[in-house]
Amino acid sequence: MYTAKPMPKNPVVAIAGITGAVGKEILLVLEQLEFPAAEVRALASARSAGKRIPYTGPGAPADGELVVQEMTDDSFADVDIVLFSAGGDVSERFAPAVVASGAVMIDNTSAFRMRDNVPLVVPEVNAADIKNHQGIIANPNCTTIQMVVALNPIHQLAPIKRVVVSTYQSASGAGAEGMQELYDQTHAYLHDEELTIEAFAHQIAFNCIPQIDVFMDDLSTKEEWKMVVETKKIMHAPNLEVAPTCVRIPILRSHSESINIEFDTDALDAAGRDYPTLDQVREALENAPGVVVIDDPENKAYPMPYPTNGTNETYVGRLRVDNSVKSGVALWCVADQLRKGAALNAVQIAQALLP
Amino acid sequence: MYTAKPMPKNPVVAIAGITGAVGKEILLVLEQLEFPAAEVRALASARSAGKRIPYTGPGAPADGELVVQEMTDDSFADVDIVLFSAGGDVSERFAPAVVASGAVMIDNTSAFRMRDNVPLVVPEVNAADIKNHQGIIANPNCTTIQMVVALNPIHQLAPIKRVVVSTYQSASGAGAEGMQELYDQTHAYLHDEELTIEAFAHQIAFNCIPQIDVFMDDLSTKEEWKMVVETKKIMHAPNLEVAPTCVRIPILRSHSESINIEFDTDALDAAGRDYPTLDQVREALENAPGVVVIDDPENKAYPMPYPTNGTNETYVGRLRVDNSVKSGVALWCVADQLRKGAALNAVQIAQALLP
Repeated sequence: MYTAKPMPKNPVVAIAGITGAVGKEILLVLEQLEFPAAEVRALASARSAGKRIPYTGPGAPADGELVVQEMTDDSFADVDIVLFSAGGDVSERFAPAVVASGAVMIDNTSAFRMRDNVPLVVPEVNAADIKNHQGIIANPNCTTIQMVVALNPIHQLAPIKRVVVSTYQSASGAGAEGMQELYDQTHAYLHDEELTIEAFAHQIAFNCIPQIDVFMDDLSTKEEWKMVVETKKIMHAPNLEVAPTCVRIPILRSHSESINIEFDTDALDAAGRDYPTLDQVREALENAPGVVVIDDPENKAYPMPYPTNGTNETYVGRLRVDNSVKSGVALWCVADQLRKGAALNAVQIAQALLP
Repeated sequence: MYTAKPMPKNPVVAIAGITGAVGKEILLVLEQLEFPAAEVRALASARSAGKRIPYTGPGAPADGELVVQEMTDDSFADVDIVLFSAGGDVSERFAPAVVASGAVMIDNTSAFRMRDNVPLVVPEVNAADIKNHQGIIANPNCTTIQMVVALNPIHQLAPIKRVVVSTYQSASGAGAEGMQELYDQTHAYLHDEELTIEAFAHQIAFNCIPQIDVFMDDLSTKEEWKMVVETKKIMHAPNLEVAPTCVRIPILRSHSESINIEFDTDALDAAGRDYPTLDQVREALENAPGVVVIDDPENKAYPMPYPTNGTNETYVGRLRVDNSVKSGVALWCVADQLRKGAALNAVQIAQALLP
């Protein structure tokens, strides 16, 4: 049985996996959002212990540098919130110690997402689920997060029956190594040098790889499976069908998604309700938390990944009626994978835990 | 009334727009396929007249160099086949002269594609339509060509009701200038220099642009509209619904497409037919002309754009059941935009005209 420590107004926050791309971004987001930490601690494997990382936000040490400490089972005694992004095996290894300490673990890996007693949370969608946690709250997969931020206001307007989504995922989803590999391969390609392939299964420079994560028995990838099951869990919509194709493309850090939404016209008919108009969908998105609509075709304005790097919002555009179904809309959705897709969402969950 | 010249076994072939990316590729394909031309002529605007272009295939001049001639209304008198890829306005300008000469125009632009008396042809799908031509045969849009090569064998197996497709289109679709701009912008980006934007509406290096061609009244782009209407025309399937999203990504010359296919289960039920299995779909594709199935998830084998540059086939992989509908499959389709998407398909039409 989990017993939470009372959450102070100024909690002690630890970041597990501070040296990774997401860990670094979490630190940046804590500072930018002025998260009211009493203290911020940097945890990592023994290999990184002693490294110094600049941090001058709330709870920073006097010299403006966090010193990385080796994470052990004893790291959580006087910690209130631990943000994990060091890989699923590390999260599994340390979860019992975090829970036993009475701290709250906000886990960015897929280790616990589908467990019944672990809320899977995108605050704009299901913040209310947070209160059911038993010491662990899971941060969803990047592709799922930005999709549900865009889908939920539409689903509240009229029930969605089916979503077909194809992703355009950046190298940052494979961490700092992925971004570096895209950079290095591109440089080598332009200078007629030999490419090195390590972070990805194939060359990523000037190429697409239609595989992210491992293959499942049904021939989907685990990344695609995550989009199916996580979306249902977050949106409390077990019957919402999702058909994803996840593709890595040679861009650095924001993900894009092409989404076709089919409304549940049987349910709308049964309830005697009109089908939603495009203007209603647009209005729902414009009023939705965390969403910015960029949709001005005449001026060639729509969301694109490069301009959104380093921003916190989920951008939606290319809104149009999908005439291939009885009632449906199509849209294009972009968000920074390291921000809303990972670090920002985790810090938003931490914010929601504050008294 | 059009009266065709009799087509000789060794026709005189002219290429209109020889200096463009597609024009150059047509010349390469004529040579590689050993198209039995009696003579090959290079036509272009006055600006390019006098340029010399190496060509050593059938019908080459003794010195192995074609000399570009200015295209005029008199250019077609003793020509049998003219392959046009110099822009829609040029095709419209010269079509009357080609038709009056009795030659056959194979047009790579969108100028005539949807006209009733102009066959729109992908030889693997509707070669029989060629015989109905009145002097003009249209080459479909690149994104449509590779999609129908993959869809048609499946549609023959079981009728398709709806297709949702998202494209990952290369810079080559914007011609040689597009490829050069991607190259130059990428180089500038890596060397911290200022980028120049000319061929595309926005930066393409390390970015996606969810707009190809102009916007239509229904908020789709013309590229998306082409995929809808051209697919219906080529496949003789007026009721086949297509929901496309067309996106430019930073790769050089092959297009990829994420395709979700929904079978017409009402039609199958009415006919008392079983729904197709994944194995049947795979077999239909494996036996289809022009298709190569690369689909070995265990060995991370699937089609990717970079390895297909310069090849002639349409590659299909990531075959799987789409469980979000009663009966459907998803797949990933890749082809070289300059080859099957343009030059190769045009030369295949020319081959089909031979006696």
